[in-house]
Amino acid sequence: MEISVYPTALSLPPLDGFQGWVPVAIDVLRATTTIVTALAAGARAVVPALDPDEARAAVAAHSGALLGGERGNVRIPGFDLGNSPLEYTPERVAGRVIGFTTSNGTRAIRAVAPLGPVYIAALANAGAVAHWLRALGRPVLVACAGAGAEPALEDTVCAGALVAALGPQAAPNDFGWLARELYERWRGDLRTLLRTARHGQRLVAQGFGADVDYCAALDRFDLVPVCRDGVIALEA
Amino acid sequence: MEISVYPTALSLPPLDGFQGWVPVAIDVLRATTTIVTALAAGARAVVPALDPDEARAAVAAHSGALLGGERGNVRIPGFDLGNSPLEYTPERVAGRVIGFTTSNGTRAIRAVAPLGPVYIAALANAGAVAHWLRALGRPVLVACAGAGAEPALEDTVCAGALVAALGPQAAPNDFGWLARELYERWRGDLRTLLRTARHGQRLVAQGFGADVDYCAALDRFDLVPVCRDGVIALEA
Repeated sequence: MEISVYPTALSLPPLDGFQGWVPVAIDVLRATTTIVTALAAGARAVVPALDPDEARAAVAAHSGALLGGERGNVRIPGFDLGNSPLEYTPERVAGRVIGFTTSNGTRAIRAVAPLGPVYIAALANAGAVAHWLRALGRPVLVACAGAGAEPALEDTVCAGALVAALGPQAAPNDFGWLARELYERWRGDLRTLLRTARHGQRLVAQGFGADVDYCAALDRFDLVPVCRDGVIALEA
Repeated sequence: MEISVYPTALSLPPLDGFQGWVPVAIDVLRATTTIVTALAAGARAVVPALDPDEARAAVAAHSGALLGGERGNVRIPGFDLGNSPLEYTPERVAGRVIGFTTSNGTRAIRAVAPLGPVYIAALANAGAVAHWLRALGRPVLVACAGAGAEPALEDTVCAGALVAALGPQAAPNDFGWLARELYERWRGDLRTLLRTARHGQRLVAQGFGADVDYCAALDRFDLVPVCRDGVIALEA
């Protein structure tokens, strides 16, 4: 089972050669972790947007909708929520639609959307996504968000968890192979790994250490979010 | 000591932010291994070119010059040498200037050339290059060639050898950190790692298994090639 992992949205090859592949997007710190947490807390849907105005427009038709997201890791002025998964409690988000803007995460989702519904993975739900991918039985294209234009340890290790969970039939590209190596070496101490990652270090320095530790926990949720026509909801 | 590693020439960030950094180019399978081997065998200089015509033009003024390089891993018709390091013996290349064209390797060298003289690294001379970088004492930008547009295990592990050799004062970006992890896990069996890499597999399938094994040997040469004004010669 082929699984090709790319370290950033910018590094994706042209998608023409990937028709029929299942796209997966990963942004462990923190967008995809926050998305799966919000849906686990009962949010009805999350609408990823590239900027605040787009987020506002996307949820304008939904009564009781919330706005969430960050710039420079900090909540956007006027928004209800930031990008900390710990804010996305059932009390705040159950039954709500959330317009959500983070830069790299949204870009990664959109970059692979031409291939079809995009599965949303984080360490928090890697096992569930891998189970789903095995059931689909099609080749898999994984777009990591990365940090800025660079590969990020946190996304790489999450991609590695997917490759590892596909078992011996997984046929990864070189970066997927490398990701699995990283996962196998660090699966027992993901918290340290995420605090070693440059983006993790920045978050800790900005006071978001609890977020980093939260995002490092594996298989917190048995849930598979999927982005269809620009809207993320639970698939399974 | 900062060392930032990028998996492909295409993934390099804008160089404006890296003035004063020392650029290094890596293409283990096989361009940079062949270049250091040619210079070790007494070649006077290697002129990297993007295509065969450019290679011919580059050495037209040198009597006794040779042409080397590949397309699809195979020697270019009419050229004296392919891209197999094993061909670059003292008998063939001593005292000669070599016009040399390989696609990814040349692109990686050129991509970072605006920063200054580009140091040429392979597993065959990683220790010597690291020693030189330590002596220079400036931050280091490493451009891996990669395989096509993708990160390649062989270049990544070589970058990891450089990061490891810089010791505890090395401050790598996430990909450099990951590269060092790969190196530390595989330094004892680089031959297997290179035969696991997709480009290594392709070379083995095309009958170049001996090249792959040759390229996997660490610190074969205590030599540092450098590319100045488009010409590669020995620095140390």
